[in-house]
Amino acid sequence: MNDTFLKACRGEKTEYTPIWIMRQAGRYLPQYQKVRGKVDFLTLCKTPELAAEVTIQPIDILKVDAAILFSDILIPVEAMGMDLEFHEKKGPVLSPALRDEGTVKKLSVPDPEDKMKFVMDTIRLLRKELAGRVPLIGFSGAPFTTATYMIEGSTSKNFLNTKRMIFQSPDLYRSLMDKITATVTEYLKAQIKAGAQAVQLFDTWGGIFSPQDFRDYALSYVKKVITELKTWQHSEKIPPVPIIYFVGETAGLLEEIKTSGADVHGIDWRINLDDAIKRIGSNAIVQGNLDPIALFLPQNKIEQRVKDILGRASSAQGHIFNLGHGVLPETPPDNVIALVEMVHNYSRK
Amino acid sequence: MNDTFLKACRGEKTEYTPIWIMRQAGRYLPQYQKVRGKVDFLTLCKTPELAAEVTIQPIDILKVDAAILFSDILIPVEAMGMDLEFHEKKGPVLSPALRDEGTVKKLSVPDPEDKMKFVMDTIRLLRKELAGRVPLIGFSGAPFTTATYMIEGSTSKNFLNTKRMIFQSPDLYRSLMDKITATVTEYLKAQIKAGAQAVQLFDTWGGIFSPQDFRDYALSYVKKVITELKTWQHSEKIPPVPIIYFVGETAGLLEEIKTSGADVHGIDWRINLDDAIKRIGSNAIVQGNLDPIALFLPQNKIEQRVKDILGRASSAQGHIFNLGHGVLPETPPDNVIALVEMVHNYSRK
Repeated sequence: MNDTFLKACRGEKTEYTPIWIMRQAGRYLPQYQKVRGKVDFLTLCKTPELAAEVTIQPIDILKVDAAILFSDILIPVEAMGMDLEFHEKKGPVLSPALRDEGTVKKLSVPDPEDKMKFVMDTIRLLRKELAGRVPLIGFSGAPFTTATYMIEGSTSKNFLNTKRMIFQSPDLYRSLMDKITATVTEYLKAQIKAGAQAVQLFDTWGGIFSPQDFRDYALSYVKKVITELKTWQHSEKIPPVPIIYFVGETAGLLEEIKTSGADVHGIDWRINLDDAIKRIGSNAIVQGNLDPIALFLPQNKIEQRVKDILGRASSAQGHIFNLGHGVLPETPPDNVIALVEMVHNYSRK
Repeated sequence: MNDTFLKACRGEKTEYTPIWIMRQAGRYLPQYQKVRGKVDFLTLCKTPELAAEVTIQPIDILKVDAAILFSDILIPVEAMGMDLEFHEKKGPVLSPALRDEGTVKKLSVPDPEDKMKFVMDTIRLLRKELAGRVPLIGFSGAPFTTATYMIEGSTSKNFLNTKRMIFQSPDLYRSLMDKITATVTEYLKAQIKAGAQAVQLFDTWGGIFSPQDFRDYALSYVKKVITELKTWQHSEKIPPVPIIYFVGETAGLLEEIKTSGADVHGIDWRINLDDAIKRIGSNAIVQGNLDPIALFLPQNKIEQRVKDILGRASSAQGHIFNLGHGVLPETPPDNVIALVEMVHNYSRK
């Protein structure tokens, strides 16, 4: 078994730097497009055989060191009771958008093995099909990022409705966040029980806050999820599963982020990795941080950036190579394949 | 004359902390809406009497310490030869979007007093109408941010086309940036000659880069503009006009930004102001950095944030209070009025 990724998550020495890529199972791969051509996005997420198939594609094609469950961060939101649709252009639409006590009260904290059984089934199937080739990462949206979609009803430019609820109706926001936090916690427990060997919390929109607001309105809930997961693993005598916390736009927030309790911190590309490591501390275990659009460079220039990032990562306790955000649909697959090779080769030296 | 703003820009002692607000002349003000109801946005920009009227509104209503020319950062792009339209929902649309040598070659470096005379006329009129009440700030988009609109044709989510040109056709990007840089430089010289008493360069999208890419593809051109402006002022014996450089999402880039040559650095809200000052250096003169959506808080909470920012600013050589980005159209005007009062009152103590 290739356990390089898990070793790096634990800060143990590895032969080379492991790499996986956010959204590695996705639209830039013709093989994914082929499967996706047959069913809509949500059906793909909800059909374990198909979700497992596209999860495994990048392991075969790219030779990455970890698989990540193919799913969507809004799956638990649908399970909580909101209507979820994906529009080709507009992206996800949740309705009715949450703005008042009535709609928040109607939400439930779902039993994952009931309402999201297809996810756990996908994980169980994947562990069988992967047969130990690489570890499987589960994931969930972090509570705040999940809340933004519920409050805005879709993606947003400036998150005015979300911040307005936080600033003008703090009690309503807290009651919503308590439900989301409980849902995310139970969801990740179920994923771990089903076989996820690491989990990542995506706080894609955490970077829209000032440091103080980030701590109060996003990080505090992440801490609850992580504390609860660690306590539960300990009491159930489950071997510790590494927890990765990814925030979009980390640069101003690292002094807060480093207190999350996560084992690994995902870093976006807007900051030099050595600078991020210095601010987290020398025992930092980090994941990142190539600009996704750098994959449009000629390969000899990609090479320079890979070497630069590997060099900057040398001060960390552990490093998992990744992009600073998801791979874009327009990305040339050959460059992604080349990236994985480069990371493996140059980090061995 | 109230020269508190100019004194702060020069790092001189002031009686209180001056404040102005990005987009202070804008849609959140009913008085602005009234003028705007009569003409479309571009006509408003191009009619000196009306542009001057809305420029002065926030001086009367808010009691801010500086006026900023009402205009748009895309005015010089139209003058360079592109078609510019403003759509109510989609925002600005420039056509044809620049993607090849042919369209870049067609662009000219316009004579500002010919193609953008209405801007200089507005400035001349404003200096007369303001009659020294407060200083007048001129502005331009920074070369990179200007380029993003020209290459994308509109606003963008991930700036794929822009970065693709930078990464795949660096010579084409350079030839485009040389033209924009010359245009911005001449445009700001003309504004200063017409009477602008400070100028701000808006690099709203500079934060989409890694630090190295920011230096190579955005900052290097800003440095050219600033060096050229300073040399010109010196040789023409024009009294120095403070230059403010504002970048959106500054947190990962401050070590680069501080080398810009600007007199004042604009800081967004995603970083604590004292942290930003520490990274720039103790002689830092900074502008910022309240989250624009904090203006939706109850006033007693706005007060806490004002005091917090004023406290954090105390380590700087100079501080101009501002938001970390433009004020939003939905903002309650009363809270903006209260903000200005608070900044004035609390900074006196």
